[in-house]
Amino acid sequence: MVGHHPDGVTHAVDDEPSPHDLDRPEIPSIDGTAERAALERQPTLTKPPGSLGRLEDLAVALAGVTGDPQPTLDDATVVVAAGDHGVVDRGVSAYPQAATRAMLENFLNGGAAVNAIADAVGVETLVVDAGIAGDPVPGALSVRIDAGTNDASRGPAMSRADAIEAIEAGVRIAGSELADADVVALGEMGIGNTTIAAAITAALTDAAPAEATGYGTGIDDEALERKVAVVEDALATNGLAASTANDPGATAVEDSPSPSDASDPTDAPDPIDAFARVGGFEVGVLAGVALGCAADRTPVVVDGVISGAAALVANALDPAVRPFLLPSHAGAEPAHAIQLAALGLDPLFAYDLRLGEGTGACLALPIYRSACATHREMATFDDIGLDGDP
Amino acid sequence: MVGHHPDGVTHAVDDEPSPHDLDRPEIPSIDGTAERAALERQPTLTKPPGSLGRLEDLAVALAGVTGDPQPTLDDATVVVAAGDHGVVDRGVSAYPQAATRAMLENFLNGGAAVNAIADAVGVETLVVDAGIAGDPVPGALSVRIDAGTNDASRGPAMSRADAIEAIEAGVRIAGSELADADVVALGEMGIGNTTIAAAITAALTDAAPAEATGYGTGIDDEALERKVAVVEDALATNGLAASTANDPGATAVEDSPSPSDASDPTDAPDPIDAFARVGGFEVGVLAGVALGCAADRTPVVVDGVISGAAALVANALDPAVRPFLLPSHAGAEPAHAIQLAALGLDPLFAYDLRLGEGTGACLALPIYRSACATHREMATFDDIGLDGDP
Repeated sequence: MVGHHPDGVTHAVDDEPSPHDLDRPEIPSIDGTAERAALERQPTLTKPPGSLGRLEDLAVALAGVTGDPQPTLDDATVVVAAGDHGVVDRGVSAYPQAATRAMLENFLNGGAAVNAIADAVGVETLVVDAGIAGDPVPGALSVRIDAGTNDASRGPAMSRADAIEAIEAGVRIAGSELADADVVALGEMGIGNTTIAAAITAALTDAAPAEATGYGTGIDDEALERKVAVVEDALATNGLAASTANDPGATAVEDSPSPSDASDPTDAPDPIDAFARVGGFEVGVLAGVALGCAADRTPVVVDGVISGAAALVANALDPAVRPFLLPSHAGAEPAHAIQLAALGLDPLFAYDLRLGEGTGACLALPIYRSACATHREMATFDDIGLDGDP
Repeated sequence: MVGHHPDGVTHAVDDEPSPHDLDRPEIPSIDGTAERAALERQPTLTKPPGSLGRLEDLAVALAGVTGDPQPTLDDATVVVAAGDHGVVDRGVSAYPQAATRAMLENFLNGGAAVNAIADAVGVETLVVDAGIAGDPVPGALSVRIDAGTNDASRGPAMSRADAIEAIEAGVRIAGSELADADVVALGEMGIGNTTIAAAITAALTDAAPAEATGYGTGIDDEALERKVAVVEDALATNGLAASTANDPGATAVEDSPSPSDASDPTDAPDPIDAFARVGGFEVGVLAGVALGCAADRTPVVVDGVISGAAALVANALDPAVRPFLLPSHAGAEPAHAIQLAALGLDPLFAYDLRLGEGTGACLALPIYRSACATHREMATFDDIGLDGDP
């Protein structure tokens, strides 16, 4: 079943029959004690109550997320996961597939936008090859599932086993490379992946393909029409079309991509299969990173439409992840607003960003850090001998 | 004449008769060569053209402001100027006047919100005593004009000579303590100063007192009614009422506060007199800082409604300052939106901040730095051997 998890329930994986074979980490609920302590601390600080507006809410929420009544977000890492997509054969991108590799190398050489922003705001960059076309790129953390996915518009992008491998790779990264991070930002690169993000968004929400599909890195109107058709094909071919996605009778894909099985509309797929059918590897890895970080009480900052798709997948796999997901920007792709609404995330700013890489998520880090810094470091009214009540 | 400067004209102080005796620094126009060079650099960077949205516009604008085609904003200082206001006698604030001194000491001890945020985002703090009640506070940079202003609702807040002294003190700070800063944020503290900011906003724009007056640090509805009446009194008593502010026949105040002269509606005041009649000292100092920084091509980030009032005063004194003023947040006080619209500043975010101190301006610094960092540090398509044309 896709998108039918009850909203806001506490994770209880042991109590319900597991619909899949993914080794999901257990995600705790929000720490109510830490959250209440933070809420009680706020009015003691040397400012009129409420005068820091949303920063106060963010600090209190982060106390509940981290379990620390006075949280710090000093150690931050942006995970930039790259993957390639068979769907580029359908002419959905303004750039050739080779740009994925060129940009992965650019990340490693420190020459991309995310490097500049991460340096400017004090965030570490972790470059992950989740499965780009061609040979591995030296220097990237390799969790390569395959050398790019299959064309999702003609059948499943990957097998269920590959989907599980991608997600579990992300969970492992959260538990190893990201184990010491106080906060993690999601970033990505992959020519064709706004098409995949649109398909995931349409598959996991009520949105129609045409509502979820945008100009990506800069295609023209004619290419946009083609791109919408490709997203529609990806859903229809894979038994994910809007008219059938909620049909409780459809079958799951087999471990080997099998378009004929996948397009059978008599059995709606579980979230793993829904993800497997459209892809991509970097989306799966980021979904796993979100689940793994949440299990460790590490907040995860969502970037644009690709990491938003990963957040939707993670939320479909386990809605307990939701409170650990933090918004950053409102991006230019239409699917992004749909994702943020579905996840209940209220963006912090809107700068018409449509680059991805984790750029918007990194930009949000100083806001979250400032919220925590005021909460943690400010003197109290008692400290300065002033009556705090207005 | 108040608020009647032609929009966007180049500064030409030597060509026009000086309406006042203020020693204004000469403000250069935007550096079109640097701006064009920045505009030409943008499409060469390794990202789809336009994909960094507003960050690209900010970087290009900052090139024109600073005169550097690849600007840096590493050295940043927030000027936190404090002053007291006679108008507090009218019960316009939720806090006693003593809170100004207590908070000034708090700034010096590093315990205020602005300290925490400035530390979190890498901004230096410069605490200035522009004229608080009582004795000087050791440790603050003292440019004390007087121990608080007179009650603006009963006559001029200060003399014209004091107004000039406050503004020129700010210009001097820009040329000395702030001489090495790449960017300056405006901050302030002063119990009663949202009342003063509302009066300045009503005096220098078309806004009515009731439109410009808000809850400040947290007064109730009854106090808000009183506060609106106080703002109306301040305008009427000082010949600044909406119905007379544009009357070209009114007289200026004398050097000695003189309510009877000031309330003469036959001669509208020049910007210095308009400012002198409502105050306050910290607003004048910040207006001077803005003028002095602009003269040095240093961008100035406007914070909330008090620094917005200072920006209005600076702009009324010399509209050439306008391009050097950068927006930060959209604050909770109604006058703030009026100020930003009057100055043509589009805020970067809105978090319902109503604290002042420079908190919102500091929060914007990482955004501006990130815009410059991507512009300056990113590899070009040539560097990575990729064709940049979509």
